[in-house]
Amino acid sequence: MKTINLDHISSNPILPEVKAALIEAINKDYSNPSSQHTPGEQAAEVLEKSRESVAGLLNCATSKEVVFTSGGTESINHAIKGVAYANQEKGKHIVTSNIEHNAVIRSIRRLKSMGFTVTSVSVDPYGWVNPQDVADAIKDDTVLVSIMHSNNETGTIQPIEEIGKITREKKVIFHCDAVDSVGVVPIDVNKLGVDLLSFASNPFYGPTGVGGLFIRRGTKVWPLLDGGVQENNKRAGAENLVGIIAMGVAADLAKRDMEVRLAHLGKLKKKLLDEMPDFIDEYIINTHPEYSLPNLVSVSVKYIEGESVVLVLDDENIAISTRSACATGSLRASHVLLSIGRSHSDAQGTLVVSLGVDNTEEDITVFLTALKNVVTTLRNISPLYKQVSGA
Amino acid sequence: MKTINLDHISSNPILPEVKAALIEAINKDYSNPSSQHTPGEQAAEVLEKSRESVAGLLNCATSKEVVFTSGGTESINHAIKGVAYANQEKGKHIVTSNIEHNAVIRSIRRLKSMGFTVTSVSVDPYGWVNPQDVADAIKDDTVLVSIMHSNNETGTIQPIEEIGKITREKKVIFHCDAVDSVGVVPIDVNKLGVDLLSFASNPFYGPTGVGGLFIRRGTKVWPLLDGGVQENNKRAGAENLVGIIAMGVAADLAKRDMEVRLAHLGKLKKKLLDEMPDFIDEYIINTHPEYSLPNLVSVSVKYIEGESVVLVLDDENIAISTRSACATGSLRASHVLLSIGRSHSDAQGTLVVSLGVDNTEEDITVFLTALKNVVTTLRNISPLYKQVSGA
Repeated sequence: MKTINLDHISSNPILPEVKAALIEAINKDYSNPSSQHTPGEQAAEVLEKSRESVAGLLNCATSKEVVFTSGGTESINHAIKGVAYANQEKGKHIVTSNIEHNAVIRSIRRLKSMGFTVTSVSVDPYGWVNPQDVADAIKDDTVLVSIMHSNNETGTIQPIEEIGKITREKKVIFHCDAVDSVGVVPIDVNKLGVDLLSFASNPFYGPTGVGGLFIRRGTKVWPLLDGGVQENNKRAGAENLVGIIAMGVAADLAKRDMEVRLAHLGKLKKKLLDEMPDFIDEYIINTHPEYSLPNLVSVSVKYIEGESVVLVLDDENIAISTRSACATGSLRASHVLLSIGRSHSDAQGTLVVSLGVDNTEEDITVFLTALKNVVTTLRNISPLYKQVSGA
Repeated sequence: MKTINLDHISSNPILPEVKAALIEAINKDYSNPSSQHTPGEQAAEVLEKSRESVAGLLNCATSKEVVFTSGGTESINHAIKGVAYANQEKGKHIVTSNIEHNAVIRSIRRLKSMGFTVTSVSVDPYGWVNPQDVADAIKDDTVLVSIMHSNNETGTIQPIEEIGKITREKKVIFHCDAVDSVGVVPIDVNKLGVDLLSFASNPFYGPTGVGGLFIRRGTKVWPLLDGGVQENNKRAGAENLVGIIAMGVAADLAKRDMEVRLAHLGKLKKKLLDEMPDFIDEYIINTHPEYSLPNLVSVSVKYIEGESVVLVLDDENIAISTRSACATGSLRASHVLLSIGRSHSDAQGTLVVSLGVDNTEEDITVFLTALKNVVTTLRNISPLYKQVSGA
């Protein structure tokens, strides 16, 4: 039986066209793009073609502003540590928010252990950062602001453009973790006013283990990976060329099909939100009603444990998640949910439903029906629910 | 016309079995190994199976000592910066050698800019590090020794086991860059006595963009990539699962076929060295006659420029290189060749011939014949050669 994938945020299936490009690239036995012979030059050519595709998706001024990496986490570590180290003589203060991905939080925590100081702004009940809070947090010794574009647990999209205006005015370098936004919603690095922007290939149906970092020309940042002269001396190491080629194809498709995908996902998301009251009660939607990803709904269902729902639905071949896969195994409640005001018990009852182009309206109905059953079953054995409901 | 690849050190063709495994993995649409549903668990299973394969190739005590990375450069940066940062309260001195790869040199240079001090030991005319020099360089505040296993430009293999005895006795952490050795020659991390060992998949015919780092249990090292809980909290970021699966298959094959490959490559290398005098004169072999890789010969041909040879041979569909592809574009003579005593002009006339399992004896003959022609042509137009030879 086919699994209904409602956990696209953890892993997107590679699109057939991307898969075909990947396999074709593997069979072509490309050489090292840095080599000086003809096979090397051919490899360098396809590498640069992919860079053009990715730069096109981000609307970069030049493809030279795109650095290929091994994924979102590397890009984020590169941006945050690279800017902090390269500019530490100017200052050692960083501004971020309470709802960032662990790659941001832990990169910054690493810097704290090396003498940097941090101001982390809080968010509203939908996980929204107030740009004025960022402006107020910036000090004379602030060298970096890092705010994510969309949150991977709630789907809420931040007012990056407004924050970009502030950082430009205050002449502070601005990094945006856009891993779950690039290729999903329109991203224009110039409109956003960011200096660095992290992204990965899988969120737009490219392979895992490949991503990139937009670095605006003139931005002072150290490489994370020192060594060879690859990537214009910005990121050493032999390139994952086949992965990069596939990401280029995925970028072209994402740009071409953006509107169709947004319409399809938006329709599914609307159906999910509209019909949910017909199936379950006593829940909170954590996703911003207006500013949020088209493919993600976070719902805190009261009096149940999200992990139990994941396990029961798994038996019915429905894949969903409770939180970022990167945080699996952590016993603590999600910092994102606590930051937006969820109680510990509501945080434990949270489900992240993330949609993809392969989902259908039927999937939503099957999921909601199954969810109703599991929620009923779990609540029936919950002492707390019995007490509250008077059952 | 098919290219004769004598530049395997820059890029190895993926073996057919590895290619098949890679394509099969791509078509299987694996989920995220960190996810808690069944597709996630299936992904985690194949991830751990690959870890076992790689651990088997290195003879690790447990597969938990293997951390997957995006390649040799990431592994090296992780090891060097990670050990230095994690142990800086103990001391800030590092011992290395003059002939390391740029990933080592530049990682250490980065640490120097952050207050670390470095002793770089010199090498003999074959590029051999004297273990006693390493012992003498270790001070009370030394926290790391980093010496490569085999050199990617000369092929010379270092006395790692002897150095390992010294670092164990002196209780200093020992990292070995074994990127061009793992899967090519037998490597046993316990026999070598290393605490960390960097490797990549492509040197043993796996895909580019995937590699790993052996970290002995109990070694104090910071992650390079902070973020999610992947890789037992040692390396964050969604895994390049298909690349890792392919590396696992390549590791199994490397272990199984090691002796056959060594015999085949050894025969080709011997033919190349034995017959070279019949084709050209006035050259120096930079590769150690006894302790060296089976698949690499470095030869400094006098009175010519290596780059010209690469270009002329490229026209005849023969791929060779002059140096590490990672250093392409650098105008400076190779630091490795200068360190072993080559003059600037001899360094400029150096060719790196690197063999692979796909090469035949016929390839060697075709290469030597072409080399004779190009060397004769280039010398005929060289004013220096005319002067020296009295022509």
